[in-house]
Amino acid sequence: MGPGEEATDKDVKNAYKLGKLIAKQGWVLLSGGRNSGVMDTVNRGAKESNGLTIGILPTADKKTISEAVDIAIITDMGSARNNINVLSSNVVIACGMGAGTASEIALALKAKKKVILLSEDKESIIFFKKLGKGNIYVADNPEEAIEITRRVLNNI
Amino acid sequence: MGPGEEATDKDVKNAYKLGKLIAKQGWVLLSGGRNSGVMDTVNRGAKESNGLTIGILPTADKKTISEAVDIAIITDMGSARNNINVLSSNVVIACGMGAGTASEIALALKAKKKVILLSEDKESIIFFKKLGKGNIYVADNPEEAIEITRRVLNNI
Amino acid sequence: MGPGEEATDKDVKNAYKLGKLIAKQGWVLLSGGRNSGVMDTVNRGAKESNGLTIGILPTADKKTISEAVDIAIITDMGSARNNINVLSSNVVIACGMGAGTASEIALALKAKKKVILLSEDKESIIFFKKLGKGNIYVADNPEEAIEITRRVLNNI
Amino acid sequence: MGPGEEATDKDVKNAYKLGKLIAKQGWVLLSGGRNSGVMDTVNRGAKESNGLTIGILPTADKKTISEAVDIAIITDMGSARNNINVLSSNVVIACGMGAGTASEIALALKAKKKVILLSEDKESIIFFKKLGKGNIYVADNPEEAIEITRRVLNNI
Repeated sequence: MGPGEEATDKDVKNAYKLGKLIAKQGWVLLSGGRNSGVMDTVNRGAKESNGLTIGILPTADKKTISEAVDIAIITDMGSARNNINVLSSNVVIACGMGAGTASEIALALKAKKKVILLSEDKESIIFFKKLGKGNIYVADNPEEAIEITRRVLNNI
Repeated sequence: MGPGEEATDKDVKNAYKLGKLIAKQGWVLLSGGRNSGVMDTVNRGAKESNGLTIGILPTADKKTISEAVDIAIITDMGSARNNINVLSSNVVIACGMGAGTASEIALALKAKKKVILLSEDKESIIFFKKLGKGNIYVADNPEEAIEITRRVLNNI
Repeated sequence: MGPGEEATDKDVKNAYKLGKLIAKQGWVLLSGGRNSGVMDTVNRGAKESNGLTIGILPTADKKTISEAVDIAIITDMGSARNNINVLSSNVVIACGMGAGTASEIALALKAKKKVILLSEDKESIIFFKKLGKGNIYVADNPEEAIEITRRVLNNI
Repeated sequence: MGPGEEATDKDVKNAYKLGKLIAKQGWVLLSGGRNSGVMDTVNRGAKESNGLTIGILPTADKKTISEAVDIAIITDMGSARNNINVLSSNVVIACGMGAGTASEIALALKAKKKVILLSEDKESIIFFKKLGKGNIYVADNPEEAIEITRRVLNNI
């Protein structure tokens, strides 16, 4: 999960690497599916490594779908689809920060999901670590995010 | 908006006062509608002052509805209903903090709504003020939350 | 429940009468809330008799809300909101026929709700009576729909 | 799309054949994903022929997911998820009849999707052909449903 238009250059770079690494593990990538920011780039990275990509889209407008999404799930329910994103994921990696991403982290914690933060936003890390108790992990780079994901998946 | 089972004593006390004050302004109270914590108490306060109360319920289980809700909207869509809560509100007052409440604040900011925080959780205030730019207000007590709401409503 | 743009003159006339009668019973009117067809007219009828009107809106576009709706619930989830309409109603009256209305009747039957059909569409009556077994009632006019509703409410 | 617990023996037999044929075309199968009736069997047929299967689940209860679903999308929004099913499909095949299936056909027509009916329920065919104008097709067997689907896909 991660911001669209508000993604930073660092977020986008991390997203591309994450997508590649997720595909290389043989994992399925699920994202918000739009053709913008982290959502677009993580899918491009995954396709670069021949991964399978699922996008949970907020609107029925086909022009907003990332070209790198294999399976487009059209919800037409705006930001309420953020809850589907997290419920359908075994682990949530939040790459970057923004209002939509923050809602996904909070919804994931509400659903008792594990969340890995990969972000330079210090205030969000402090807040979510307190809110999420043991369910928040912090990664410094995409490789570490993948390593934490693997450990979490082994314990589910 | 505010936590159910995780509400603190202070949150519940604030919620009751908020409910009374909202009703006294002649405003309609919209909440998550469950019979627990801030959701239950804010509705009780509003009915004490003869207000009109709307509850947007996450499940179809009638036993979970606050007795002080006049109009129960049954969504049966779990936490995805949090987006309906904020889209249907002219102003969002977040009383207390928890994963569900944090998701509502974030979804409200995503929808460009004004949010008033009434909470002792300092980390959440720091994070959301940064995330929400000009759309986050902080109140020290229920009276101040109502006063800020009045000012915001005058400018909509 | 009933069609917007596709409502017939008869549907609209029936809707106005239904709205007035619902308000006169002291019942709360819940509808799809748009400013078109049955949805708009039933709310106008109810306000004419000083009823309370709730609209469950499919989009966040305020221009599409009937002026006769007191409480607008903004779902921004398109036709998926049809399920909220029926789950939140004690009894469903379907006034007229169309694709959206048919989905609401079917969703109501799925949720074991009682549905009263007020429509000239004979094929829909035959189909839904078979599908709904004992949960479908047919009314010839608004007065009869109200009379059936009263009987159903007494048995809930 | 098709009924769970209420599926007839004929529906289940048709569903298995449909699943196999869909997979053989190289198409992705999207269904309601539960481990019951048409939903379960169509996925089993598709996996028998090495297809890719997506299930859009109504609840977060993992025990209700068909074992033959590859990708489970957890909506936790009950029957409101029926709208996602049809919006995410290029063509809708309704195998059998029931309240949930009828809601999906109606929602598909509302969204201007093409729907192919494969059912022995004559009243539903008469009703939906009238309601759907040119968007309803009737198939006598799974092979014909696939043939119609191919023609429709060529014209999208």
